Amino acid sequence: MQTQFIEKDFPYDGTQLRSLFAYLNHGILGPSVVAWQGACSIPFEHMVDGEDLLAKAVIQGDEMLHFIIEIFDRDLFSGVSLQRLFASICRDYLQTQAASVLVGKSLRRDGDDIYLDDRKLSISIATKSPVSVLVHFAMNVTNKGTPVETLSLRDLQLDPRRVAEDLMTHFRKEYISMVTATHKVRPVS
Amino acid sequence: MQTQFIEKDFPYDGTQLRSLFAYLNHGILGPSVVAWQGACSIPFEHMVDGEDLLAKAVIQGDEMLHFIIEIFDRDLFSGVSLQRLFASICRDYLQTQAASVLVGKSLRRDGDDIYLDDRKLSISIATKSPVSVLVHFAMNVTNKGTPVETLSLRDLQLDPRRVAEDLMTHFRKEYISMVTATHKVRPVS
Amino acid sequence: MQTQFIEKDFPYDGTQLRSLFAYLNHGILGPSVVAWQGACSIPFEHMVDGEDLLAKAVIQGDEMLHFIIEIFDRDLFSGVSLQRLFASICRDYLQTQAASVLVGKSLRRDGDDIYLDDRKLSISIATKSPVSVLVHFAMNVTNKGTPVETLSLRDLQLDPRRVAEDLMTHFRKEYISMVTATHKVRPVS
Amino acid sequence: MQTQFIEKDFPYDGTQLRSLFAYLNHGILGPSVVAWQGACSIPFEHMVDGEDLLAKAVIQGDEMLHFIIEIFDRDLFSGVSLQRLFASICRDYLQTQAASVLVGKSLRRDGDDIYLDDRKLSISIATKSPVSVLVHFAMNVTNKGTPVETLSLRDLQLDPRRVAEDLMTHFRKEYISMVTATHKVRPVS
Amino acid sequence: MQTQFIEKDFPYDGTQLRSLFAYLNHGILGPSVVAWQGACSIPFEHMVDGEDLLAKAVIQGDEMLHFIIEIFDRDLFSGVSLQRLFASICRDYLQTQAASVLVGKSLRRDGDDIYLDDRKLSISIATKSPVSVLVHFAMNVTNKGTPVETLSLRDLQLDPRRVAEDLMTHFRKEYISMVTATHKVRPVS
Amino acid sequence: MQTQFIEKDFPYDGTQLRSLFAYLNHGILGPSVVAWQGACSIPFEHMVDGEDLLAKAVIQGDEMLHFIIEIFDRDLFSGVSLQRLFASICRDYLQTQAASVLVGKSLRRDGDDIYLDDRKLSISIATKSPVSVLVHFAMNVTNKGTPVETLSLRDLQLDPRRVAEDLMTHFRKEYISMVTATHKVRPVS
Repeated sequence: MQTQFIEKDFPYDGTQLRSLFAYLNHGILGPSVVAWQGACSIPFEHMVDGEDLLAKAVIQGDEMLHFIIEIFDRDLFSGVSLQRLFASICRDYLQTQAASVLVGKSLRRDGDDIYLDDRKLSISIATKSPVSVLVHFAMNVTNKGTPVETLSLRDLQLDPRRVAEDLMTHFRKEYISMVTATHKVRPVS
Repeated sequence: MQTQFIEKDFPYDGTQLRSLFAYLNHGILGPSVVAWQGACSIPFEHMVDGEDLLAKAVIQGDEMLHFIIEIFDRDLFSGVSLQRLFASICRDYLQTQAASVLVGKSLRRDGDDIYLDDRKLSISIATKSPVSVLVHFAMNVTNKGTPVETLSLRDLQLDPRRVAEDLMTHFRKEYISMVTATHKVRPVS
Repeated sequence: MQTQFIEKDFPYDGTQLRSLFAYLNHGILGPSVVAWQGACSIPFEHMVDGEDLLAKAVIQGDEMLHFIIEIFDRDLFSGVSLQRLFASICRDYLQTQAASVLVGKSLRRDGDDIYLDDRKLSISIATKSPVSVLVHFAMNVTNKGTPVETLSLRDLQLDPRRVAEDLMTHFRKEYISMVTATHKVRPVS
Repeated sequence: MQTQFIEKDFPYDGTQLRSLFAYLNHGILGPSVVAWQGACSIPFEHMVDGEDLLAKAVIQGDEMLHFIIEIFDRDLFSGVSLQRLFASICRDYLQTQAASVLVGKSLRRDGDDIYLDDRKLSISIATKSPVSVLVHFAMNVTNKGTPVETLSLRDLQLDPRRVAEDLMTHFRKEYISMVTATHKVRPVS
Repeated sequence: MQTQFIEKDFPYDGTQLRSLFAYLNHGILGPSVVAWQGACSIPFEHMVDGEDLLAKAVIQGDEMLHFIIEIFDRDLFSGVSLQRLFASICRDYLQTQAASVLVGKSLRRDGDDIYLDDRKLSISIATKSPVSVLVHFAMNVTNKGTPVETLSLRDLQLDPRRVAEDLMTHFRKEYISMVTATHKVRPVS
Repeated sequence: MQTQFIEKDFPYDGTQLRSLFAYLNHGILGPSVVAWQGACSIPFEHMVDGEDLLAKAVIQGDEMLHFIIEIFDRDLFSGVSLQRLFASICRDYLQTQAASVLVGKSLRRDGDDIYLDDRKLSISIATKSPVSVLVHFAMNVTNKGTPVETLSLRDLQLDPRRVAEDLMTHFRKEYISMVTATHKVRPVS
C-alpha cells in the first residue's frame, strides 16, 4: 500500500471517487491512500450515496482534509470494512493527539462517522468500480461552510498535514497486517 | 445477524472454530455471534494460527469470555476486517464502561488485540471454512492460568455476561449497518 | 428481501433496469422485488439483451405487469437462476389461479418465458451492474400493442394487482429459504 | 454439461456427495449430472444437512432414483438455485408424464421438495466443496423403507430409467441456456 | 471457446475493447477469440492503459493483425494471465514458423510484449467490463506508421491470415485444457 | 512474492501440496515460490490429479527439482494460468541456457509439460485449498527411477540450484508485473 500527501490544495467535488484516481493524477500505483486539503462541494450528479440523494443532502465545507483509499480485487463489503476501520483509527489517533483540548471528553465513532457529542467531524462513503473499491473520508479543517453543526481539526488544535501523514501511516500498517493475517492461517472444515 | 449468550460454561479448545458451530450446537442459523464463558486451552492439533504454530505458542487461560462470529459468502479478508472492528468496538465499550477503574488511562487496540500498557486483554483468530468465515475472540475474565502478563475483565470490574450481551448488540448493529452500506451506493467507473 | 407494489402506473422503457432503482425511486433498501403496471416500449439504446439487439427486436405492449428484482453480492449466473425460478413460480401460481379458464390446458415455462401453446405471456432479462444483479420480468395485462401472438392476464381473468402481490410473496419466501439453505449445510471435500 | 445414467445399481450413503464423484468413479469430466438407482441410507456421520443433523432425521428408502449434479466455479447460492430449478423441472415433467394417473391433481414443488398432497416424492441437499458445488436429488422408486408417507415413481406408473434420462436432458438444456444467458447481455450502471 | 477470423479489414480505435464486441458485431457467442486486419490508432479518450495515459503514448500502426479475447466470469488477474499465455503461444509459434528468417535468433516474450532484440512486434492490454474480461493483442503486419522501431509479420515473411487462424486454434486448445484442468483435481486442505 | 531455495534435500510425496507449506515449514509468509531437490514418489492417497488417479499412474523419479507456488485469494483457473506461465518461463529459460547442448533443437511446452521430442522433462499439478491455490512443478534432475522416457537437467548440463534460483527470480518478476497490470487499467463497459 502506497501513501501520499498531495501538496497542492484542490476541492473535492465527487469526481475524485473514481478508479485509478491516485494513479492517473498522481502516479501512485496499486492499493493506496492519498490525502489533500481543499473545499468540499458535491453536486447532485456526482453524489453516489443513495441516502444523500434521497435526502437531497447538501455536502459541503470550506476546508476539509480529504482521503481517498483504493483497494483492488475486493468486494464492496471489504471497502465498507476498511472505511470503518479508517474511522476507528482516526478516532483513536485524534483522541490521543487532542487529549489536552478534549479534557476528558471522548470522540465517538458511529459507523463511518466521528462525533464529539453532536458535532460531526467527518463525512465518508465507500463505493465500487468494476476494478476496485474506493473510500472517500474527509474531516473538517474549519467549521466554515458546513451545513450542520460540526467539529473541526482547528477546534482540536491539530495540524491537518501532520494528521494526514500519521493517519495514512497507521492505516497502511493496519492494512498490511490484515493482508498478512489472510496469509498465515489454516482453513477449517 | 443473530446473537446469543450461551448460559452453560464450557472450555474453548479450538474445535469450536468450525463452520455451523452455532447452528449445530445451539440452533442459531445464519450470520451470528455467540458468546460463553469457560477455560481456554488449545492443543497444537487444533491451532490454526500459523504464527502460533511456528512459535509453539501456549494459548490458555482459566476463565475467558469467548465469542464466535460466523459470516457466510465472504472472503477471509472480510473476516479479518470484522475481527478488527469487533476489537475496536470492544475497546471503545470497555473504555467507557471501566472509566472509573482506568482513571484516565487508555485501552489500546493493536490489530486484533486489546492492551492496557503491556497487559494483554484478548486473543483472536480469523479463518475460513469452505462455506463461511469464522472469528474467535476471547477476553480474560481472570488472569489465572495465562502464559503472559494479562489484563482481565475482573481487573476492569466488569460483569462478563453483561459485557458479552452489550458487545454482541453493538457488533450486530455495526454489521447490519455495514451490509446496508453495500445496498445504498451507486457504482462508479 | 423487501417487496412492494407501486400504486402509480408508469411505462417501462429499459431505464428502470439500473442499480438501486427501487431504493432511489421508491425508498426500498436492499434485496427487493417491486412491481407496477404500465406500457412497455424499449428503445434500442436501452436494450441490453444482445439477442434482441442482433434481431432488431420490437419489445412492446400497451399494458404489462412489471417486476424488477435486485440482489446484491451475487454473480450474473445467480441472477439468471432467480429469473428462471421467478418464471417457475409464476407458472405454478397462474396454473392454479386460472384453472377454471385453462380447463385442463397447461401453461409451460421454457427458460425465462411462459407460454400457453404458442402464445407468449411474458418477457424477461437478467443483467449485472457493478454492485448488483437485476431482473426485469413482465407479463401482458392485455394483448394490445404486442408484436407477436400473446397471452395476457386478462385472458386468464386475473387481477394484475393481486397477481403481483401473490407472486412477490411467493418469491420472497423462496429467496429467503434459498439463503437459509446456504447457512445450514456442512461443506464436503 | 455431461449427463449419464449409470447402469449398475448401488446404494446412496452420502459419500457420493463429494467433489469429482462423477469423474473419479465414472470418468465423466466437468459440469455434469449423473443418475442411478439404489437404496438410500445415510448414516449420521455422512449427513451434511444441519437441519437433519439437529432433527436426528432418518433418511432412507429401499429403492430411489438418485441424481448428483456438480458445477465448478460457482457459489453455494448458485448450487441451491440449480437444485430448485431441477426440482421445478422434475415437477413439470412428472405432471405431464403421469397425467393419466394424477387425473387432475397437481404435483407441488415446495423449495427443493416435490409433493402430492402430503406425500413426499423426493429428498435433496446442495453443498459446497472447495472446488465445486454439488446437489443430491433423489425420488422414491417405491415407498418401501421410507420413514414418512411418501409418493413414488411406481405410484405414478413411470419407468425410473426413462425418467432419469429425460430429466437429465431437460436439465442439461436449461443449464446450457442459463450459461448462454450470462454471455449475451450488456451490463448496466 | 469460439474463434473467428473476420474477413473484412477495419481499423482498431479502442472502441472494440468492450463487452460483447464479438457477439454484437459478429454473432459470436460466449468465450471467444476473434481476429482481423486493419490500421491501429487509439485516441486518448479510448485508451484504457493508465501507463499509456500517463506517458501520453502514441499507439498506432498502418496495418496490424488484431485479436480480441473475451472470457466471462473471471477476474482481471485471469485476463492478464490469458494475455501473457497468448503472448507465449505467439512467440513459440512465430519462432517455429519464421525459423528460416530468424536464422538462430530468438524472439523473446517480456510480459505481454514480443521482441526481436529491441524491435517490438506487438501491443496488448487486458481490462475488465462488469460482465467479462477482455484482451486486445495486436502484431504489426508492416512497420509503417509505428511510433517506435518495430518488427512486423512481413519481416518474418508470414501470412497474417494464416498466423491468425493458427494462433486462435492454439489458444483455443490451451484455454480448453486449462478449464479442463480445473475440473479434474481434488482439493487439498 | 517471496522466493526461497531450501538447502536441505527431501523427497516430495504429495503432502507438501497443502496450504501454508512454505510458511509452516520454512517461515515464508504470503504469496511465494519455493524450490528444493529430492526424490519424487507420490502414493495413491496423496495424488490429487484425477487423471492420474483414473490411470493408476506411477509418478516418481530418483532426483527432481521441485517447486511449490502458493497464491492467496485467487480461483483455481488463476492457479492453472500461473502453472502454465511457469512452464513457459522454464521452457524459454532452459532453451537459452542449454543452447549449446540442444544444438538447434527446441524444447516444447504443451500445457503444463515441457518436452524435447518425446522425452518429458517435467510433471505438474495445480489445486486449491480453502485459503489459496497451489502449484507443484518438478523437473527431472536425472532420468533414474522415472516410469517413462524422460529428459533431465543433467542431460541439459545445467546446475539444478542455479536453475531454481533463476526460475524463481523470473517467475517473481512475471507475477509482480501481472499484479501491477491489474492496478493500472481503466474498466470498460
